[in-house]
Amino acid sequence: MSIDTSINAAASITEADIFDAHLGGKLSVQSKMPLTSKRDLSIAYTPGVAQVSRAIAADPSLAATHTWASRLVVVVSDGTAVLGLGDIGAAASLPVMEGKSALFKEFGGLDSIPLVLNTTNVDEIIETLVRLRPSFGAVNLEDISAPRCFELEARLIEALDCPVMHDDQHGTAVVVLAALFNAAKVANKRLEDLRVVISGAGAAGIAIAEIMITTGVGDVVLVDSKGTIHRDRDDLNAIKAKYAAVTNTDSIIGGIGEALDGADVVVGVSSSKFAEEDLTRMNDDAIIFALSNPDPEVMPDVASKYAAVVATGRSDFPNQINNVLAFPGIFRGALDAGARRITSEMKIAAARAIAALAEDDLSSDFIVPSPLDPRVMPAVSAAVQAAATE
Amino acid sequence: MSIDTSINAAASITEADIFDAHLGGKLSVQSKMPLTSKRDLSIAYTPGVAQVSRAIAADPSLAATHTWASRLVVVVSDGTAVLGLGDIGAAASLPVMEGKSALFKEFGGLDSIPLVLNTTNVDEIIETLVRLRPSFGAVNLEDISAPRCFELEARLIEALDCPVMHDDQHGTAVVVLAALFNAAKVANKRLEDLRVVISGAGAAGIAIAEIMITTGVGDVVLVDSKGTIHRDRDDLNAIKAKYAAVTNTDSIIGGIGEALDGADVVVGVSSSKFAEEDLTRMNDDAIIFALSNPDPEVMPDVASKYAAVVATGRSDFPNQINNVLAFPGIFRGALDAGARRITSEMKIAAARAIAALAEDDLSSDFIVPSPLDPRVMPAVSAAVQAAATE
Repeated sequence: MSIDTSINAAASITEADIFDAHLGGKLSVQSKMPLTSKRDLSIAYTPGVAQVSRAIAADPSLAATHTWASRLVVVVSDGTAVLGLGDIGAAASLPVMEGKSALFKEFGGLDSIPLVLNTTNVDEIIETLVRLRPSFGAVNLEDISAPRCFELEARLIEALDCPVMHDDQHGTAVVVLAALFNAAKVANKRLEDLRVVISGAGAAGIAIAEIMITTGVGDVVLVDSKGTIHRDRDDLNAIKAKYAAVTNTDSIIGGIGEALDGADVVVGVSSSKFAEEDLTRMNDDAIIFALSNPDPEVMPDVASKYAAVVATGRSDFPNQINNVLAFPGIFRGALDAGARRITSEMKIAAARAIAALAEDDLSSDFIVPSPLDPRVMPAVSAAVQAAATE
Repeated sequence: MSIDTSINAAASITEADIFDAHLGGKLSVQSKMPLTSKRDLSIAYTPGVAQVSRAIAADPSLAATHTWASRLVVVVSDGTAVLGLGDIGAAASLPVMEGKSALFKEFGGLDSIPLVLNTTNVDEIIETLVRLRPSFGAVNLEDISAPRCFELEARLIEALDCPVMHDDQHGTAVVVLAALFNAAKVANKRLEDLRVVISGAGAAGIAIAEIMITTGVGDVVLVDSKGTIHRDRDDLNAIKAKYAAVTNTDSIIGGIGEALDGADVVVGVSSSKFAEEDLTRMNDDAIIFALSNPDPEVMPDVASKYAAVVATGRSDFPNQINNVLAFPGIFRGALDAGARRITSEMKIAAARAIAALAEDDLSSDFIVPSPLDPRVMPAVSAAVQAAATE
C-alpha cells in the first residue's frame, strides 16, 4: 500500500475519497432525447425506429450516421497487465477501464464503454471483437500483457476495419516522442545524434523504440531484465528479436550501466531503479524520463543532478508524461477522418502537435503541455485528421 | 412503407422527425464524476484507481459495488427477428437496441448498452457473452428468431450467473397476463374457465402459453401457420412439441376458425389477420388482444363488435399492451434483489403488480396502466424483488 500512500498524501486524497467516488461505478448511460411522451416513444422506439432499421438494412452506410456505434470506442482489457498491479483479472481491471472510458468522453468528446474479457487467449479475444464488430467504431486495447499485446494488436488491425490501438504502447510512445522533441531543443541536441536507452522492453518500451526509429533518432538501445538487447542474444522472443535487428547498432553488451555510458537520453518504463553511478555515465545535458508510476525509476531531485531535462509520469512534478495528452485526440482525429487505421504518420503528427503546444514557453521544466490544457485534444485531433487525410 | 405512415400520421410524426432524432445515435456515456482537475484524475484514474482494482482483486465481491457492471444491462441481438422486419442483421437492429437501452435508463433507472452480434450461431453467442461476463450484470435478449431464441435463452441462463431474459418472450407474456387478469374481471370470467387461443407460436406465443398454463388458465390452444398445435402433428419443432403435450386438451384440429369456436380469449402475436366470421364463433363477452404492430390482427372498432374487451399494441387505441410496462421493473427488481435468475414467480408477480395499478379504474377501455404511468416501474420492481426474496 505504500506506493499509493505517497501519491495520495501529495494530493491529500484519502482512501475514502477514492472508494466513495467509485461506488456504483464511474459511468452512466443517458438517452440523448427525452422519453416522456407517447410521441417520444414513437420516435425513439416503435414504430418510428423501424424506419431507421429498414433504412440501414437497405443502405448499410447509414449505420455510421444513425447509430452511436461508428463513434463508440470500446476499451478492451483481459486484465493481464493492469497498471503496475500485473495480472489481476478482468473484473479487477474494470475500474481502470471505466476511468479510461470516462477520459474518452471528457477529453475526447467520444462515447466509450469498457469491455473486459474472461479469456486471455489471443484467438478468443479477436474472435469476440469480430463478432461484436457492428457494436462499436474503434478499439482501445488496455493493460494487456506483453508480448501477447503485440500479436493481439497486429492481428486485430487486420481483422477489423476500424481504428485499433493499444494505448499502453502507442499512447505512451506518442507522448514520449512529443517530450523528446522539446527536451532535445532545451538540451540543444539534434534527434539524429541522440543515443536513447529504453529501460523496459514491454508494451511501452517496444512502441517507444519503434516510433523513435521511425522518426530518425540516432540510435536506440533497449534494455530488459537480462540486460541490453543485441543481435547475439539467444533468449529473445519474436518481437524483441525483431528490434534487436534494428536497434543497438554498436552492439552494446551489458546492463543499464553499460547502456547509459555515452547515452543522451534514458526512458524508464520498467520500474527498475536507475542508480546514480549509472546516470553519471551519460553525456552532458542528458535527458531523463523516469516514467514508472507511481514510483519513478529515479526521483527528479536526484535525476536533475545529471540531466538538463527530467520528466516523470507524475502530476506533482514538472513535465508529466501522461497518455491523456494523446489518446483522446488520436481516436477523435481518426474517427473524424473516417480512418480505418492509425498509422505511424498519424502518431508522429500527434506527437508534433503536442510538442508544439509547449514550444512558446519551452524550458527544462516545461516540455509538454498540461494534461488539462484544453488546447491539446483539438490540436492533436486536427493533426491526426490531417495526417489521415494525406 | 405504408405500415409506418399510418402510425406516423396518427401521431403527426414525420420521417424527418424520426431520422433527425437518430442522427449520431440515441445514447451517450457520461462520467459520473467531474474530471477537470488533477485531483479528479488522481481519484478516477491513476494512481487512485489502483487501490480499487487491488481491492477487487483481493475481494471479488467488491466488483459488484465499485464498478457499474453489476447493474449494467446488455441488450443483445443478432438481428434475426427485428420488430416485424425479420432478419435484417445486427447493424440494422442497432437503432432498436439503442432505443431499448434508452428505455432501460429512462424507465428502469438502469444503465444499459446494446451489443449486437455478427453471428447467428447459438453456441457462438453464448460463448461471446460468457467471455464478456465480467462486463455486465444482466442480459436482455432482443429480436432473436424462434425457435433459436428458446435454446439460446435456456442455455444462457445455465451459462451465466446473472439475470437473463428474452424480452420478446417474457416481457410480452407478463404484460399479456396482466391484461388478462383485468380483462377477465371486466368480462366476469374466471381464469380457470378460460379457453385461450394464441395465434402465433413464436417467441411471444410460446411464452404467453407458458405463463398462462403456469397461472392456471383453463386451456390454451396455440395456432401456427399450419393450424392448431395438437399432439398428432408430426411437423412440430422441439418447443412446439413440448407445448402440444400440455395445451389443447380437447385436441382441436383445424385453423384459427376451429380454434376460436367456443373460445373466450384470443391473443394475436403473428400478424395473421382475424376474420370477422371467425370472431363470431367465440363465446359471449370474449376478450381479443390483437397485438401485432403496427397493424393489429383486427382493428379495435371491428373487434369490439364481438368482444367485451379489446387490446392492441398501439398507443393510439385504449389498452396498449406494451413491454415497457414490464421489462424495466423486472430487471430492476431482479438486480435490486441480487437474483441470479428471473423465475416464473417473479414474472407472475410482475403481472399482478401491473394489473393492480389499473384495478381502481377498471373498465373495458382501461385494463392496463399507461406505459408512461410513473407508478409502474416501482410497483413492478418491488413485486419482483419480493418474489425473488421468497
